[in-house]
Amino acid sequence: MRNVVLCLSFLGTAFHGWQKQKNAETVSETLEKAIGTVTGEKTSVKGCGRTDSGVHALNYYCNFTLSSRISCEGLKNALNAVLPETVSVKKAAVADDGFHARFSAVSKEYRYRIYRGAVKDPFSVGRALWYKYPLDLEKLNAAAAVYAGEHDFSAFEASGSSVKDKIRTVYESEFYEDGDFIVYRVKGNGFLYNMVRIMVGTALKYNEGKMSIDDIKALFETGDRSAAGKTVAGYGLYLYDVYYGEELF
Amino acid sequence: MRNVVLCLSFLGTAFHGWQKQKNAETVSETLEKAIGTVTGEKTSVKGCGRTDSGVHALNYYCNFTLSSRISCEGLKNALNAVLPETVSVKKAAVADDGFHARFSAVSKEYRYRIYRGAVKDPFSVGRALWYKYPLDLEKLNAAAAVYAGEHDFSAFEASGSSVKDKIRTVYESEFYEDGDFIVYRVKGNGFLYNMVRIMVGTALKYNEGKMSIDDIKALFETGDRSAAGKTVAGYGLYLYDVYYGEELF
Repeated sequence: MRNVVLCLSFLGTAFHGWQKQKNAETVSETLEKAIGTVTGEKTSVKGCGRTDSGVHALNYYCNFTLSSRISCEGLKNALNAVLPETVSVKKAAVADDGFHARFSAVSKEYRYRIYRGAVKDPFSVGRALWYKYPLDLEKLNAAAAVYAGEHDFSAFEASGSSVKDKIRTVYESEFYEDGDFIVYRVKGNGFLYNMVRIMVGTALKYNEGKMSIDDIKALFETGDRSAAGKTVAGYGLYLYDVYYGEELF
Repeated sequence: MRNVVLCLSFLGTAFHGWQKQKNAETVSETLEKAIGTVTGEKTSVKGCGRTDSGVHALNYYCNFTLSSRISCEGLKNALNAVLPETVSVKKAAVADDGFHARFSAVSKEYRYRIYRGAVKDPFSVGRALWYKYPLDLEKLNAAAAVYAGEHDFSAFEASGSSVKDKIRTVYESEFYEDGDFIVYRVKGNGFLYNMVRIMVGTALKYNEGKMSIDDIKALFETGDRSAAGKTVAGYGLYLYDVYYGEELF
């Protein structure tokens, strides 16, 4: 049995997230079905993380064991031939037996795209949050700077999570301009459920003058979700990359 | 009655082109319906050109007469509130009575996007032609250079057109790189039916070594459609802008 690792990209709005669910098309099920078609094997694919409905991935990693001796290039091409056009296998390789797409991850990087044009943009529908109100890049970056470092991110987690340890380290956190878009870039050792979306919502709340920098800092102490900003739309979020301590491909 | 001009953008894959058809959703019908909802008036909207099914528009112009005294800003906002998210009114203004979105146009500019990644890109589906084979920018531009100037473009027109005059002038014609994309930019005084898509298909045929530069030049003499390249997919084409001899907005 080989431990196969894939790097995927997918259009999040075409799926109800990564994880298997009843009566909803998810990326993992779609992929397992494609692997079955190509190799005849029933596999259980382990993903690098749960991504929500609508959330996109530019580089999503997963692994699974396979008996078939098909070459990695052959597997990649065969999967791409049967997968829907909304998900694509970018790379395939054989990893060490101990490799696990989620537990071996050292850090993750996300992007959140905000369209700031005066009128809606048909090309950004489902791909960026449309935000009509003034955006002050300097203010957004003042909020982003607060996030950097090791903090208790309880206030930035959606309710209903079973994760106990809420301490995460954010390595890089900045907003930058990209044409008609403002993009938030964040890299950290891990992210709680909905964390990035609440971080963006909180930066927007600060941008709107509805809270102060001290209010944001206090969230790490109080852990008060209700004092943070909204959970912004999933379709603006992109899993940009996941970093492992080893060369995979 | 005022002669109102709008600048729109729309996602072409959501519509069966601009022009009214039976049993198919088109941009002009969608817009006329929205104008009816907002003003209660039945209008006949004149577009700057027929765009095919799947073809996108970044700036599409149209005009129509209106009795309502609604302000242009008010009309724009009200239309955007009722239009589907795949079409958007970017600007609205009152034009001179003689203005006609199609006949007053002096020149038009298109873009054609080609995705050249090794694997399919879920984010480019319906937005760019995926072309897996090697693309030589220098060769593409050698073909593009042939198109510049005044020529008989009969060989670059889909059959079934009733247009008599096939002479068009191409002012600007070039391929350029944009990340994982190659983009064709063309500006001219007018374009025949499917002309840009056949121009791109012919440049690709030359890129593939299946015809020579002299073969392309000969197309202006022979008018032989069958000797030109394929009509590439409509979803890679974007109406980039239309130029009028006057300031409209």
